[in-house]
Parts: sequence; structure tokens; C-alpha cells
Amino acid sequence: MNTIQDTIKQTIKSGVLSNSEYTLHPIDCSVKINQNESPYDLPVKLKQQVTEKLMSRKWNVYPDFIPDSLYQKLSAYLGFHKDNILIGNGSNEMIFTILAAMLESGHTVNIPVPTFTVYGLISSNLNATVNYIAPNSDLSVNVPALREAAKTKGSVTIICSPNNPTGRALTPNDLFSIIEASGGIVVVDEAYIHFGGQTIIDSINKYDNLIILRTFSKAFGLAGLRIGCMISNKAIITQLAKVKLPYNLNIFTLTTLEVVLDNIDFLQKNIDRIMEQKPILMEGLTKHKELTVFPSDSNFILFRTDKPDWLFDELVKRDVLIRTYANGKYLEGCLRVSVGSPDENKKFLDALDEILG
Amino acid sequence: MNTIQDTIKQTIKSGVLSNSEYTLHPIDCSVKINQNESPYDLPVKLKQQVTEKLMSRKWNVYPDFIPDSLYQKLSAYLGFHKDNILIGNGSNEMIFTILAAMLESGHTVNIPVPTFTVYGLISSNLNATVNYIAPNSDLSVNVPALREAAKTKGSVTIICSPNNPTGRALTPNDLFSIIEASGGIVVVDEAYIHFGGQTIIDSINKYDNLIILRTFSKAFGLAGLRIGCMISNKAIITQLAKVKLPYNLNIFTLTTLEVVLDNIDFLQKNIDRIMEQKPILMEGLTKHKELTVFPSDSNFILFRTDKPDWLFDELVKRDVLIRTYANGKYLEGCLRVSVGSPDENKKFLDALDEILG
Repeated sequence: MNTIQDTIKQTIKSGVLSNSEYTLHPIDCSVKINQNESPYDLPVKLKQQVTEKLMSRKWNVYPDFIPDSLYQKLSAYLGFHKDNILIGNGSNEMIFTILAAMLESGHTVNIPVPTFTVYGLISSNLNATVNYIAPNSDLSVNVPALREAAKTKGSVTIICSPNNPTGRALTPNDLFSIIEASGGIVVVDEAYIHFGGQTIIDSINKYDNLIILRTFSKAFGLAGLRIGCMISNKAIITQLAKVKLPYNLNIFTLTTLEVVLDNIDFLQKNIDRIMEQKPILMEGLTKHKELTVFPSDSNFILFRTDKPDWLFDELVKRDVLIRTYANGKYLEGCLRVSVGSPDENKKFLDALDEILG
Repeated sequence: MNTIQDTIKQTIKSGVLSNSEYTLHPIDCSVKINQNESPYDLPVKLKQQVTEKLMSRKWNVYPDFIPDSLYQKLSAYLGFHKDNILIGNGSNEMIFTILAAMLESGHTVNIPVPTFTVYGLISSNLNATVNYIAPNSDLSVNVPALREAAKTKGSVTIICSPNNPTGRALTPNDLFSIIEASGGIVVVDEAYIHFGGQTIIDSINKYDNLIILRTFSKAFGLAGLRIGCMISNKAIITQLAKVKLPYNLNIFTLTTLEVVLDNIDFLQKNIDRIMEQKPILMEGLTKHKELTVFPSDSNFILFRTDKPDWLFDELVKRDVLIRTYANGKYLEGCLRVSVGSPDENKKFLDALDEILG
């Protein structure tokens, strides 16, 4: 008779078994600038439109197999045919779809680190050989090393640009050089592209091996809805559509995204408001000479301190929650703060002044 | 220079490449009894509660990392500790989570067919060796053959009971004999358990290698929300929780499920209404001697005819949509009809009488 541990060991992939659990101990603060969320909720009128549409919809009926009108609207917004697009529950689902379609034992994924941890987590769960590319000393991507790694035939290379949590975007030319060198497919996650860096989304027409990821959780202010999408050439999308689960999006997601795409004016205004605040946040950080502040092409700023745990805790005592990477590889001593509303940023900077003197 | 087809062939799994696209050409009929949905929408008062809660929630903020109060409520409803439960976007996401955690090239999955096609689709996408177990001549599961197959060390065995689309449940004793023989893990999908068969959910405490799937899309009438869950022992759930994506559920799903679990009275009433209609539907089918009607422990009935395409089309002409399996393996000539509302069932039976004379 097998013990439970034998059964688990024999049935569950070794990559899953050796990963540790992804846990998070929630901390409640009234100033929450720890997840790169937009400080701006969807306008009340649009929320009302969504809930009214939901009231008149049947909740007991499956969503459309292919939500055609939504795909049409997203296609018009992005400027690509709907055959070039897949939509999922956050870009997380799209990342899982891509990697599950491509990775297993013996397959290689190249990930420049430090970056969004979900890429490596999923890849290792899938038993892939995960090739983490160490950064330059300023935490920027080591482009020559990444380009070399990307050459591996059949490999997947995932680049977040602008990168979370370091903040920097790669130049289009650097990205192109990696895509051209790649012996497989390159995924560029443009989650933060509304705040800086230069999109290479048009290059899906030039390069056969490029997938772009976008999210509605950041600039669009829809983190609670979990909506993301990928854009690529039709041949790749056709394959990945087989791996995406049918009926993956619920009627709330579908309805909200349609309403948002029909009323997109609020987006640029919100981005402008965030970008106006960013220099204030940057200046308030850099004036503290004990902090090393990294440049940012995004809606968040990474900085390093000698006493990250102490600083994090002191901020929490003052009701301000930011994100700590103090124990992260290459990120020793680093904290990340998202650009919040003017009031949130002021409370953070005031608390920082009080703590650091 | 690689062509796009080379790149795809080298990077995407062979299992994905050889699967055909899962397409569906939507047909609109006012009587829609093709997807085993509940004919009963959530009571308007509960829908209002949900949308009111949503209006007061921030859509720009991520859902809780672990939606604790929801897990508590579901735990109380199911009678299992929250460490025994994972919730996903439909049981589809839970099936993908389980299989992605367990299957790759060289791993075996046992699937008694005909059954829900998503099990085989995901398994083959993951490059697993898919061992389809042929049914008995009456389309019931060949239990001895399945039990023998399940012995493979480290294998996954997936059983839908009551089974879609055949309608039959396995007895608990047959299920136990398969679980006891298994050299790996057994997944029992109880999507239709509210309509017939006997649940074996309590056996997760007895068997170390059992996972139960449940859905809120059928009896609960929440197909539009895409909510499913799995129940197993803590050791298995701990591993699968690493594979489930963080923040997988959006605030609509979370809010709705909480409201539903706080107001669960409607559920049994809706099940009773469906079960009252089922004998009427069964009788209306069996009186047509040219139809072979299969017994059903579920909210749908499978039947066979010599002219399935003609019958399907004639029903559509009369504004009635059912599901055809006419070209499915082992299901030659088969159609499936879900138990609808009294009015829907009457329209279907009247149309059938008119067509068959």
C-alpha cells in the first residue's frame, strides 16, 4: 500500500514538489501602494453601466463560446485583427497558457531576473529547465547574455519591459536583437507600457516568433477584474487557442471590458495624473541620500536601503504599505513603491521624512 | 532563418500541434437546452445584492490573495476544512491545474470514454499518454478495464460520475474499487451529483489519492460566472495550490459565491423543479420507439436515432437547440437534451412529436 507521500511523489511533477508554497501575509494599511495598482477606480457611471447590463443578463447561461463583439472592440482598440488576440483572466492566465503549451522536461526557458516571479514559478512547475539570466550591477538586463541564451533552439524567452520590479524598459533595438537571435519564441510582457518605454507591439507583423502580453490591471485600473491579453501572429495564436480553456472569461469580465472599450476616454486622463505625480515621488525619495533610487519607466519606483525591514515596518506603523523585496535575489535591501494618488504619495513621503529625519 | 512553421514545431508541444482546434458554431434558438445549464437564473434579489456590493467595491484593487471569508463559507457548506479546498474559474481551471501539475511526456492518464472532452484535450496538450477506456455496449463504464488501467504507477484517472454525456453514475463501490487499485491519483468529477448518483466526497478522508471536483455551473445555476472547486486531502491541495494561479478569481466571482452561500435556500427548490420535469422529458422521449433512450442520473438525457443530423436540424427549425454527438466516438447517432423549464421541455416534446409523428 502506497503512503500518501509516495503517491504524491510518483504522480506530481518534481518541479511542483520542489517549489515552495507561494504565500502572502496580508497587511492592512489605509495607504496601499504595494501592488502597482492604479489609484483610480473606474468612473462610477461606467460601473453602473456594467452592473445594469449584468442585471439584465442571465447568470445561469454560459458566456458565448467566442465573445465576438468583445474581440471586435479589443481588435479595434489595439489595431490588430481578432485572430491575433487571446483574452484571459489576467495576463497570468495568458502566461500559463503560453508556457503550458511550450514547456516540459527538457525544454528551456530564459528569464532575465530579477523580474515578475510568476514566469519562473510556472516554468519550474512545468519541469522546464529555467535559465535565469543575471542582471548588470545596476539591475538592468544583461542584453548580450540574454541574446546568447535565447539562441537555444525551441526555447522560450520571457522579458518584462518595462520590468517589474526594477522599473526599466529595454530599448526596441535591444529587444529586436534578442528576438532575431532567438531559436524559439520571445514573449514581451508590456504590462507597464502605458507609463514608459516604447511598445514593440507592431513588430508582431515583422517577427514570426514574438508574443506581446498586455494587462488591464495597471493603467486601466481593473486589477479586481483580472483581465489580460496576448497579441501575436495568427499561426501562434491558433496553437495557443487550443490550450486556453473554453469559456475562460465570466460575464462580468466580458461586460466590463466591453463597457471600458466603449468609453476609453478616462484612460489617458488617469495615466496623466499618475505621470504628474511620479516626479514628486521620485524627488521625495532621492533627497534621502541613504536611499539608492533606481530609474523608472513605470508607475512604481524601486529603491535600496541598508535597513529595509526596519523602514518597511516603520511605514506600516504609519499606515503606509509598500512592497518589500529585501530577501529577493539581486534585490537585497530593495523596496518598491507604486505611484498612488496625490494624497497617498504625500502620506508616504511625509512618513518617510519622519522616519529618516 | 527559421520559418514560422519551424519555430512553432520546435517550440510548441507536439500534443498541442496534433490536436485540432476546438470550435463551435453558435446557433441561436429561443429554447436552449444544449449545455446542461439550469433553467433557473439566480433570484433577482440575490443578483441585486451582488451588484450593490460590487458598486461599493474598488475595481482597481486586486482581490484578496486568499479570499478567506469565501473559503470559510464554502468550507462550512461542504463540511470540509478550507485546507481541503481550492476554487477556480469553472471546474475547467481546476482540471487544468491538476493535469498541469501531474502530466507530461511519459505520464499516463486513464479516461473512460465517452465523457467530457476537456479531460482528454488538456491531457493531450500536455503530451501525456492518454489511455481511453472503451465503454460497455450500453455506454456504461467498463469498470474492470478501468480498474486494471488505473494500476499504472503514478497515473491519473479521471472519472465523471454521473457521466456527461451518457448520464450514468458509477456506484460508490465501483469507484472505491478503482481508487483502491490505483497506482496514482483518481479524480472524480461530481459536476452533476445534485441530480443523481451517490457522492463519495466523504471518502477524501479515507483515501489519500482521491480528488473530487464540483461545479457551480449546473444545479447552482451560475454557468455565466465560471466557478468550480476541488476537494482533497491537505497534502494534495498543498501541492496543487502551488500550480493554481494567484488572484485567479475576480471580484464578481468572489462576491457572487459569498452571496449564494449565504442564501442557499433556492438551490434545493431549483433541483426539485428540475427533477419533477425529468420523468416528463424521459416519458416524452421513450414513447418514440425509433429512439434508444439511455438511463440518466443527471439533468440531461442521451438518446440515439438513425437520423441524428436530420432530427437536430428539424428541432432547430422549430427554435429548439439540443446537443449533437452524432459524430462522436461510441456516440454515433446520439443527441443529448438538458432538462429545461416546464415550458422549454414542452416546446421540445411538442416539436419532437411533430417531427417524428
